[in-house]
Amino acid sequence: MDFLKNLEWRYATKQFDPTKHLTTEQLDHILRAVNLAPSSYGLQPFRVIVVDNKELRNKLKQAAWGQPQVTDASHLIVFAAHNNLTEADVDEFLHRIAQVTGVSQQSLKEYGNGIKGKVNNFSKEERFIWASKQCYIALGFLLAACANMHIDACPMEGFEPAKFDDILGLKEKNLRSVVMATVGYRSTEDQYQHQPKVRKVSEELMIRL
Amino acid sequence: MDFLKNLEWRYATKQFDPTKHLTTEQLDHILRAVNLAPSSYGLQPFRVIVVDNKELRNKLKQAAWGQPQVTDASHLIVFAAHNNLTEADVDEFLHRIAQVTGVSQQSLKEYGNGIKGKVNNFSKEERFIWASKQCYIALGFLLAACANMHIDACPMEGFEPAKFDDILGLKEKNLRSVVMATVGYRSTEDQYQHQPKVRKVSEELMIRL
Repeated sequence: MDFLKNLEWRYATKQFDPTKHLTTEQLDHILRAVNLAPSSYGLQPFRVIVVDNKELRNKLKQAAWGQPQVTDASHLIVFAAHNNLTEADVDEFLHRIAQVTGVSQQSLKEYGNGIKGKVNNFSKEERFIWASKQCYIALGFLLAACANMHIDACPMEGFEPAKFDDILGLKEKNLRSVVMATVGYRSTEDQYQHQPKVRKVSEELMIRL
Repeated sequence: MDFLKNLEWRYATKQFDPTKHLTTEQLDHILRAVNLAPSSYGLQPFRVIVVDNKELRNKLKQAAWGQPQVTDASHLIVFAAHNNLTEADVDEFLHRIAQVTGVSQQSLKEYGNGIKGKVNNFSKEERFIWASKQCYIALGFLLAACANMHIDACPMEGFEPAKFDDILGLKEKNLRSVVMATVGYRSTEDQYQHQPKVRKVSEELMIRL
């Protein structure tokens, strides 16, 4: 039951210790967990931008209401969803399945057509929202991985996506920023670490049928 | 690094062993992890419907293209987002904070007004989409918790939400079903358990800046 203890340990860190950094191994571990997150059909319709560059982070901070986590955390990880997932993206996915599993692309054709039908049935905005939701599963995996390693993290929606897209050059990649997390180590001065966790009691959250 | 091994172990289980059930402790563990998932502001703008009842599950299966997981898994867990989050929900949240942390409700007023401003700025549909996204973090925590206990799970978007809402009586609770997961134990006959996991290679998923 250590996992639950680790989830109890974590909190949305507001103040990071800017002198403490993740090792390459720690960052790789977290990003591997992100990559292992499931997504609808397995499409992974998003990219994960790992921002280390200080200059970029100073700019991003201004587009995130000056929140200090953006510059003070060890790393900033932005989830950006595909803005316009196309049949070509589905074909790329089918190619990946064929490569990894050894089945023929031909045998995947019907499966692929099913996915394309789903994708084409969405409006462009609906498709983006659908892709965005998949980012949140990956965010969940990131936060769980961090908690398990006692690495601090703060999930953040509070930023201006259009400005982020500009600063990170996402528009030309057909991506739009959705949500982000800062990761690193809490400052001893962050008072939030001492607050009890506020959650619904089980009966308020669950309905049993 | 066992967590990564557990995430590698998991897969979207298509065929469950209908004779195997989770214990109450296992289910409680998973639901506790779900409750510990963070959400925007900590609002938890959703409910989690744990469906055990066979009759209901037979009906739900028909609204999920007959997918056998819906009836064969040990439990079915549906995430349903608030359809119309109001200031009253925010007040309930502020009340909870005051209760748990011991601060006065008065001292939370400004904070609460900030949340209400955000909530009121959304259209009803935007608010629902925002609430829906929070369900996906909780889904991520559910899947990670299951993987850690070597309990099988299948995240599922493939169902008709309006029919689910009808069958589960969600409309009158001002909820709309968003995504679900079936949990239990894989059937030895599920061929998908033997397939290698298909994921983007790190360089395809990550952008490093």
